[in-house]
Amino acid sequence: MRAARLHAYGELPLVEEVEDPDVSGPDDVIVRVGASGLCRTDLHVIDGVFEAISIPLPYTLGHETAGWVHAVGSTDLGFAPGDAVIVHPYVTCGYCGPCRAGWDQLCERFRFAGAMMDGGFADYLRTSSRSLVKLDPSTTPVEAAGLADGGLAAYRAVKRSVPYLAPGSSVVVVGAGGLGHIAIQLLLAMTAADIIAVDRSRSALDLAENLGASTVLLADGGHVANVREATGARGANVVLDFVGDGTTPADGLAMLARGGCYVTIGYGGRLEVDTADLVANELTVMGSLVGTITELGELVTLAARSRVRVTTRLYPLDDIRSAMSDLRAGEIRGRAVIVP
Amino acid sequence: MRAARLHAYGELPLVEEVEDPDVSGPDDVIVRVGASGLCRTDLHVIDGVFEAISIPLPYTLGHETAGWVHAVGSTDLGFAPGDAVIVHPYVTCGYCGPCRAGWDQLCERFRFAGAMMDGGFADYLRTSSRSLVKLDPSTTPVEAAGLADGGLAAYRAVKRSVPYLAPGSSVVVVGAGGLGHIAIQLLLAMTAADIIAVDRSRSALDLAENLGASTVLLADGGHVANVREATGARGANVVLDFVGDGTTPADGLAMLARGGCYVTIGYGGRLEVDTADLVANELTVMGSLVGTITELGELVTLAARSRVRVTTRLYPLDDIRSAMSDLRAGEIRGRAVIVP
Amino acid sequence: MRAARLHAYGELPLVEEVEDPDVSGPDDVIVRVGASGLCRTDLHVIDGVFEAISIPLPYTLGHETAGWVHAVGSTDLGFAPGDAVIVHPYVTCGYCGPCRAGWDQLCERFRFAGAMMDGGFADYLRTSSRSLVKLDPSTTPVEAAGLADGGLAAYRAVKRSVPYLAPGSSVVVVGAGGLGHIAIQLLLAMTAADIIAVDRSRSALDLAENLGASTVLLADGGHVANVREATGARGANVVLDFVGDGTTPADGLAMLARGGCYVTIGYGGRLEVDTADLVANELTVMGSLVGTITELGELVTLAARSRVRVTTRLYPLDDIRSAMSDLRAGEIRGRAVIVP
Amino acid sequence: MRAARLHAYGELPLVEEVEDPDVSGPDDVIVRVGASGLCRTDLHVIDGVFEAISIPLPYTLGHETAGWVHAVGSTDLGFAPGDAVIVHPYVTCGYCGPCRAGWDQLCERFRFAGAMMDGGFADYLRTSSRSLVKLDPSTTPVEAAGLADGGLAAYRAVKRSVPYLAPGSSVVVVGAGGLGHIAIQLLLAMTAADIIAVDRSRSALDLAENLGASTVLLADGGHVANVREATGARGANVVLDFVGDGTTPADGLAMLARGGCYVTIGYGGRLEVDTADLVANELTVMGSLVGTITELGELVTLAARSRVRVTTRLYPLDDIRSAMSDLRAGEIRGRAVIVP
Repeated sequence: MRAARLHAYGELPLVEEVEDPDVSGPDDVIVRVGASGLCRTDLHVIDGVFEAISIPLPYTLGHETAGWVHAVGSTDLGFAPGDAVIVHPYVTCGYCGPCRAGWDQLCERFRFAGAMMDGGFADYLRTSSRSLVKLDPSTTPVEAAGLADGGLAAYRAVKRSVPYLAPGSSVVVVGAGGLGHIAIQLLLAMTAADIIAVDRSRSALDLAENLGASTVLLADGGHVANVREATGARGANVVLDFVGDGTTPADGLAMLARGGCYVTIGYGGRLEVDTADLVANELTVMGSLVGTITELGELVTLAARSRVRVTTRLYPLDDIRSAMSDLRAGEIRGRAVIVP
Repeated sequence: MRAARLHAYGELPLVEEVEDPDVSGPDDVIVRVGASGLCRTDLHVIDGVFEAISIPLPYTLGHETAGWVHAVGSTDLGFAPGDAVIVHPYVTCGYCGPCRAGWDQLCERFRFAGAMMDGGFADYLRTSSRSLVKLDPSTTPVEAAGLADGGLAAYRAVKRSVPYLAPGSSVVVVGAGGLGHIAIQLLLAMTAADIIAVDRSRSALDLAENLGASTVLLADGGHVANVREATGARGANVVLDFVGDGTTPADGLAMLARGGCYVTIGYGGRLEVDTADLVANELTVMGSLVGTITELGELVTLAARSRVRVTTRLYPLDDIRSAMSDLRAGEIRGRAVIVP
Repeated sequence: MRAARLHAYGELPLVEEVEDPDVSGPDDVIVRVGASGLCRTDLHVIDGVFEAISIPLPYTLGHETAGWVHAVGSTDLGFAPGDAVIVHPYVTCGYCGPCRAGWDQLCERFRFAGAMMDGGFADYLRTSSRSLVKLDPSTTPVEAAGLADGGLAAYRAVKRSVPYLAPGSSVVVVGAGGLGHIAIQLLLAMTAADIIAVDRSRSALDLAENLGASTVLLADGGHVANVREATGARGANVVLDFVGDGTTPADGLAMLARGGCYVTIGYGGRLEVDTADLVANELTVMGSLVGTITELGELVTLAARSRVRVTTRLYPLDDIRSAMSDLRAGEIRGRAVIVP
Repeated sequence: MRAARLHAYGELPLVEEVEDPDVSGPDDVIVRVGASGLCRTDLHVIDGVFEAISIPLPYTLGHETAGWVHAVGSTDLGFAPGDAVIVHPYVTCGYCGPCRAGWDQLCERFRFAGAMMDGGFADYLRTSSRSLVKLDPSTTPVEAAGLADGGLAAYRAVKRSVPYLAPGSSVVVVGAGGLGHIAIQLLLAMTAADIIAVDRSRSALDLAENLGASTVLLADGGHVANVREATGARGANVVLDFVGDGTTPADGLAMLARGGCYVTIGYGGRLEVDTADLVANELTVMGSLVGTITELGELVTLAARSRVRVTTRLYPLDDIRSAMSDLRAGEIRGRAVIVP
C-alpha cells in the first residue's frame, strides 16, 4: 500500500509503497482509510517535537482518520468488515487507572498514531478495536476525518467550558481555523453563550460569522480591548485558545472576566501571568488534551444530527506535501484532509 | 479609641487616638475588637500594592477581626450587643450579580477592611451586619481572628480542591505558615488525601508534622524531586501554593501529576509555563480569592468542633510595629494576632 | 386600582377596586403591571393548597408578572421609573443562609406573590427591588410575563439536567403545555440532546414539534414503551415531568435509562417506586423549585436573543375568571396571560 | 475444592466438593480465597430475588471476596501468583459505553459473582483480572473481604454525598450494621459533617458511637423527630439508607432539610412521597449501586491508612449455614465473614 512516511525530522514525508498492515493481536483492527485530517500537530511531529517519545524513523504520519473496517482480530467488539468508523488518535490500554476511570486521554500506556505507531496517511491503518467509534450512515469518512483529533479536542474543551457558560455569558474562540471553526458550532449546539471569534485572517472570520459567531474581531492588536467592549466591559467568561502560542496566552488571560476560565488547546508558546492577577480575579487556566473515546462518540452523534460540519479542503495522498506547505503558510480555511 | 493608622506608604503605622466609629447606616455594626490577625497582605498594603483602590491616607489597617457586637443599625439580622462574632474582611453590596449568585468574594462593589475602609487594628471596627458570622461559645475571638481572612482563604482553596482529592491522592501544601498550617488541618478534616508540606523553615515543618502532614519536605532545591519520590513518581494531584512568589509557581506546577491542579492563594510573583505542559499533562491552574460569607460560616463550625485551631503569637496593639517587623523577617510560627 | 382578589377558597376571584399600593420600606418597588401569567399554581392557591402559609383572605392573586417600574424606595439598586422589568415570584430576605449562598429559591423567609402577599393580577404590584430583573428593550412585558414563574421553573429544571444531557442522550418532556413548551426551547438552546415530548393533547404535541422536539408521543398508555423504542431500548437520560400527578411519576421513572434522572417540577400527585429499582438502575429523582434570581436573569437573556418565546393566549384582567376556567379545562395552548 | 452451593431457591446452600476452577480465557484469574463477606444480598439471592438473571442451579454463592492470586491468564495486568487482592463483585466487559466512561457499575454485560457466575464461598474463585485490586501488605484478605461489596457500596454512597456535606452539615446513617458502620468511618475520613446513626439495635448504636458518630438514635418511632431536634430543627442534609425497606424510605425523606438528599443503598422496600414534598423542599433521591473499580481502589487505600476497619465475625466455610441464620436473625454486629 501507499504511505506518507517521515524519514528525517525537519523534512517533509515521502509517499512510498510499504507492506499492508495485518492483524497480529486480538484487539487489532485494520481500517481502510477513507480520509485523514492534517493538523498543526503533524507539523510539530515533523519538526521533531515528539521525537523523544516516537518510534524510530521512518514511520507513517497521520493521526486523524476515518474509514471502513477491513479486518478484525479475535476480540469481538461488534465491528465487522465494511463498517464505517472514525478512529481515535490514541490506542489505549484499557487497564491503567485513568482508563478504568474513563479518562483514557490520560492513559499511562497510550500510543499516538502517526508518531508512536504508524498513522493514517496511507491506504490502510492498523489500530485497536478500542479506538473505533461507528459512524452514522449519514456521515461519510471524508466528512468525519477532521473530527477524530481536531474536532475531538475542540469538543472536550467546549464540554469542560459548559459550566462557565450560562445564558448571557460570553466565550472567545481564539483562532477560527481547523479546530476553532468546529468549536463555534459546538458552542452553538451545547450552550447559549455569545460567541466572539478572534483571528488574524479575515477569511477565517468570515467563516466564523457564517457559522454563527455573534462577534468577529480581527487580531490586530486592539482585539483585547475590543473583547472588553463587546462584553460590556466585563470581559469573557471563557477563552478557548486554539493557538496557544505567541501573544495568545497573555491576550486570552487579559480578555477574561473575574471568575473566568482560559482553556488552551493549542500549544507551542508560553503562558506568563502575575499570581496577583490569578488571585484578585480568581482566574482558572486549563490545558485540554484531545478527548476521551466517550467524547468522540458524543461528537459523532452531533455530526449525525448535522450540528457540526467540518469545512475541509481535500488533497490526494500523493499531494500531501503541498497540503503541509499550505498549512504551514496559514492558507487553509477550515481543515486540510488527505484522501488516499 | 486607639487605632493603628497608616500615614505614608512604605512606613509602619502609628497607634494613635481617633474618634470612636458610630452607626450611620441601617446595615452598620460596631464591633468591639477582640483580636485582629496580621498577615502578609497587611505588608502589601503598607507597601502600597493596593494604593490605587484604597481610601486616602491616613486609615486604620487590619482586615482579620473577631470581637463582640457593640452597636447595631436598624437592619435586624439577629445580632445583638454582646454577641461574639467573626468579621469577613469584605463589606459586600448584596445586590450585584456575584452577590446574588453566592459569589460574594467577587462582589462588584466590595470594600476591603484596612485599605478600602478603616480596619480592625483598633479598639472598635465599623463594618456591615452582612459581614458578620456568630461564633460558637466554645471559640473566643482571640482564637478565631486568624480564621477571618487567612483561614478563610485556606478554607476556600481546600474546598475547591476536594473533587481532585480522592482517597489515595496527594496534596502539597507549599508554605506551612499562617495559612498553610490551617490548610493542613482543613485537609485532614475534609479529605483523606496524603498531605505533603513544603517550607523553607524547619520550625514550620515541625508544626506541619505535628498537625498531621504525612510527609514534610524542606524547600532546599531538591523538593520538587522529593515530592515526585513521595508520590511514587506520579506527582501530586493538587498543589496549594500559599506563597505564590519566587520559584513556588514553577515548582508547584512541576510537582503535579497528570490531570492535577495547582491552586495559588499567595501572590506577589509570576507564573510561567509552556502551553505544551498545560496541554500534554492536562493541568489546571486556579487563583483562589478569600472566600464567601457562607464559607466563613462553614469554617467557624470546624473551629467549634475543634477541627481547626490557629497557632498564634499574640501582640498588644501598641506593639503592632514589632509584629509587622517579625512577620516581614519570617519569624512568626503560625499567625500573628493583635489584641487591643 | 383594579385587582383580582380571592375572597373564599374554592371560589374564583373577584375583580374589584382597591387602593393603590405604595412604597413603605426602603426596598419596596411599585410595578405597573404589563401582564401576569396564569398557571396551575393559581388554581392550587384557589383550591386552598397553600392556605396554611397564606395571608388572610381576601388577597390579590398572581405571581408571574412583568411591567414597568412605577415608584422605588430609598434602596438604590439601579431601577428607575419607566424601566421594563420582570418580577421574580418570591420576595426574599437576602440575609439567611440560602440567600447568601445564592439559593434564594430556598430563602427561609420568602414570601410568594399572590398567596403570601398581594400578587400581580392587578394594575399595580408592590414587590421588592431584590425581586426585579431588567428586561432587554427587545422584550415586552406581555412577552416576558410567562417567564417569571413557569419559564423560570422550566429553566432551573433544564439547567440542572445539563450534566446528564451529553450529545446523543435523550430527554423526555412530560407535559408540553405552559412550562413544557418553554422547556423544549431551553433544551434546544442549552443542550444537544434529542427531545421527546409526551402529552395527552395532540395540539400541545403539534406545538412541541414546531418548536423542535425530535419525537412527539401521545400519552395514550403506550407512551412508556414508545419512549423505550424511540431511545433504542435504552430509555431516556432525563425525564422532566411538568405534570407530577396521576401516572406521570411512575411513567417517568419507567422511561429512564440506567443512571438516568427524573426531575419533577409539577406537583399534586405521588411518586411510588421500589427501592430495588432505584438501586439496580442507579436512578436519581429531583424536585425542582422555581428558580433563583440569577437564573431569572439568565433566562431573560435567552428571551432577548429570541431563543425562547412564550406561546400565549391573552385575557383582559376583567375576564380572568374565563381564563381560569379555560386553564382548568385544559383548553390553553401554551400560557394564559392576564393583561390589565 | 469445597464450595457452598445453592441447590434450590428458598433453601440454604450445601458445602460440597466440586472441581477446582481453571484459567480458560486470557483475562481469567484464579483467586485462592482468603475470606468472603456475607451480606443481605446473599439472602436475597437464596430467596430467588435474582433468579431471572442467575445461572442455572446449582451454583456457588458469595460475591465479596479477598485472597491471593493463584493462577493468571495470558493478559498481563501486573498480577502474579501470591499477590494479595480484593475482588470486585462484578466481572465487567471493559468495552460498553458505561465501562469506557468509567461507570463500570453500570456495565451492560456485567456478571455478578455468586449469582451470575460461581462465587467466593469456596476455596477458589475464578474471576477476571479486570476485577482485581491489589491489597497493601498492611491489609490482610480477612480484614479486607467486607470491603469488596458492602464497603464499596458504602464508599460510593458517601463519595456521592460529599458535595452536600460541607462543614456544619449533618448526615444520617440509617442502619449501623455491616454497611452502615463502614459508612460512619468513611464519613469521618472524607467529610467534616456531623454524623447521626439510627438503628433498631442498641448494640449497633454502641458500635456507631465508638466509631465516632456524634449522635446515635434508637429507631423507636420517635427517631424522625429526634433527628430534627439533633439538627436544630433544620433536618439533615443527607440521609444514607442502608436498609431501604419498611418505613426507612419514608422516615429518611422526613428527616431531610430543604435541599437535602436521600440516598438508598438498601433495597427490598418501596419509597412513596408526594411530588409536592419533592418540589417544595427541593429534595433529591438517589439509588446507589455497588461502586466502580476505581472506587474500590480508593477504598483500599483508606484501609491501608487504617481509616476504615470492618468489624467482623468470622465463620468457617463449613459453618456458613449458621452464619446465614444469624444474619437473618439480625444477630451479627458489623459483618459476617466466611473463611475457607
